[in-house]
Amino acid sequence: MPSPKHLTAMADSEILSPGSTIGILGGGQLGRMLALAAAEFGLRVHIYAPEETSPASEVADAATCAAYDDATALTNFAATVDVITYEFENVPGETARILNEHAPVRPSPKALAVSQDRLDEKQFLTSMGIAVAPFIPVDTVDDLTNALKTLGTPAVLKTRRFGYDGKGQVKINHPGEAAAAMEALAGAPAILEAFMPFEKEVSVIIARARDGTVAAYDPGENVHINHILHTTTVPADMDARLANDAIEMATKVAHGLEYVGVMGVEFFVLPPTTDGPRLCVNEFAPRVHNSGHWTSDACVTGQFEQHIRAICNWPLGNPHRHSDALMTNLIGQEAHDWQAHAAQSGRALHLYGKHEARPGRKMGHVTDLHPRRDQ
Amino acid sequence: MPSPKHLTAMADSEILSPGSTIGILGGGQLGRMLALAAAEFGLRVHIYAPEETSPASEVADAATCAAYDDATALTNFAATVDVITYEFENVPGETARILNEHAPVRPSPKALAVSQDRLDEKQFLTSMGIAVAPFIPVDTVDDLTNALKTLGTPAVLKTRRFGYDGKGQVKINHPGEAAAAMEALAGAPAILEAFMPFEKEVSVIIARARDGTVAAYDPGENVHINHILHTTTVPADMDARLANDAIEMATKVAHGLEYVGVMGVEFFVLPPTTDGPRLCVNEFAPRVHNSGHWTSDACVTGQFEQHIRAICNWPLGNPHRHSDALMTNLIGQEAHDWQAHAAQSGRALHLYGKHEARPGRKMGHVTDLHPRRDQ
Repeated sequence: MPSPKHLTAMADSEILSPGSTIGILGGGQLGRMLALAAAEFGLRVHIYAPEETSPASEVADAATCAAYDDATALTNFAATVDVITYEFENVPGETARILNEHAPVRPSPKALAVSQDRLDEKQFLTSMGIAVAPFIPVDTVDDLTNALKTLGTPAVLKTRRFGYDGKGQVKINHPGEAAAAMEALAGAPAILEAFMPFEKEVSVIIARARDGTVAAYDPGENVHINHILHTTTVPADMDARLANDAIEMATKVAHGLEYVGVMGVEFFVLPPTTDGPRLCVNEFAPRVHNSGHWTSDACVTGQFEQHIRAICNWPLGNPHRHSDALMTNLIGQEAHDWQAHAAQSGRALHLYGKHEARPGRKMGHVTDLHPRRDQ
Repeated sequence: MPSPKHLTAMADSEILSPGSTIGILGGGQLGRMLALAAAEFGLRVHIYAPEETSPASEVADAATCAAYDDATALTNFAATVDVITYEFENVPGETARILNEHAPVRPSPKALAVSQDRLDEKQFLTSMGIAVAPFIPVDTVDDLTNALKTLGTPAVLKTRRFGYDGKGQVKINHPGEAAAAMEALAGAPAILEAFMPFEKEVSVIIARARDGTVAAYDPGENVHINHILHTTTVPADMDARLANDAIEMATKVAHGLEYVGVMGVEFFVLPPTTDGPRLCVNEFAPRVHNSGHWTSDACVTGQFEQHIRAICNWPLGNPHRHSDALMTNLIGQEAHDWQAHAAQSGRALHLYGKHEARPGRKMGHVTDLHPRRDQ
């Protein structure tokens, strides 16, 4: 099997041993799957979340139930753990700062800060020479009217902060919709992005270790329904050069942030020019990513294990894919079909232990595995 | 991919839903890996073990610390769970009986009883027409002396109950060693077995569902050091006919016990006669099995998930193997080499969270994966 690029050993003094405790901010399914991966290495997990019970706390050694701005609880939590990570990118900056005084926060507060603000994120990507959709910061209706003149329509107005699964964004088809769009976002600081007529969306799940080693999984092709990820198919239907380009761009992002851990980088595949098809980065998430769930079933080392390896300063695992994969999210009531999924041959079923199947809620996922067509 | 044989749906009324609780007797690594597999399905786990903390209780939703003969604790435990299983075959019969009054115990107390006593086990296998080493029950030195006359030497004297990892057995090379051998076993009821000059040992991990569906994994070839499993290699180096024979014999055992769950059946491959090579059953274990650990890394459905499926009355998963595998146990201080194992490309590392690396203690295992040579 191919090795991850540049795999090297790390200094002994910095390596977390089995028996150490990982603190995780957030109690959802990503925290749960991180906790399960940590357990496979004999590592302990302490979950910090505002909910009394959560999918992650049920499988963890310890849990703290407190608000993300409770400085005392944060300090007490940090005192019990050897390293801290998080399952969502909207960790308040002050929270990360308090924690980082007591135990290393990985990925770093810097990666968190850049990814929390779409303007910072776009500016960072642009500074790295990475193509993104043209964008203009927008704070007022006047700003927006001017920005629409520059970028044209259709365009997408997005809040700078706290957006996910399509929340905090509105598509503008005509300049006259400017005021309504600003109102829809309740006047939050925003950016206007030119609408990219993409042919498909792909993502790269990439890990970077403290020594700069990177290990990227093969790009997956993503289909969304109602702005929520529906399926990821691997390999993506894209030519090999473009797949390499995506991995190189993701690598550049990871190095640029001096990133430690697993991140997901989303790309738009744009219509071909005379030079062939092109890519631009849509956004990245400083965490394990829904579009990487297939890795747990189709690779020797899945993304959750890989993130644990990176933040504990272990060597990265091999991202080699032994099978082709189709991951399908189970949203809301779709999880009620678990019996049919469990009966399907060659399908790995994952349920997150959530008690209520609310509409739009991610309840689980399935991965269909098939022998690689290219081997 | 091939489907498990006779896969059929089960009656709705008998199926445990996600959110149900599985009770597990025993807190070791097998209980831990069962708990992690249950968590992937959104099932809860309650561990019952005499130890205050244990590898399994650290990843479970709930834990009861009590002795296996504490009727009150057993009853309280059973009241909180929907089904009960176990990670070791020496569960006292009375314990199984008490529990079974409150929640179904799977595999059944009958399977437990038969496997707990080597004499019952051998008689059961013989009654099924399955070849075993010739054996004679032995209670006294006189019995043993007579048995040695019948079976000859070398032979192996084994306690009827509570043997594992070579404990409770002694090899007899000369008839004059009879008295010393009985003394070594402290006069416990025993059986004498003819020593089988086996060429290799293989095992079949097989699951049986309540409706009689079975799903068998490919046989693995086992090497022991100091009577403790060292490696399992899959596929085993044996001809296809013999591999099929092993699976058929394991299937017969599972059906004969009306078994529900995963079991491990160990075989000796004997020197060929004019009919070709032959097999006999060494023993079986009514539980997930060390020689099946490779399945978690090399199959869509591993043995721990498969056992959970069976005892919850879910359809069995596909035992198809996507990769060739070599599983190596990490015993005692061998687990201190975890960094080297973690750095090995294509190697899955599993550590059980045990705090003290005592000699002979199973601390973890690694599985090396390779593309299948036969495809």
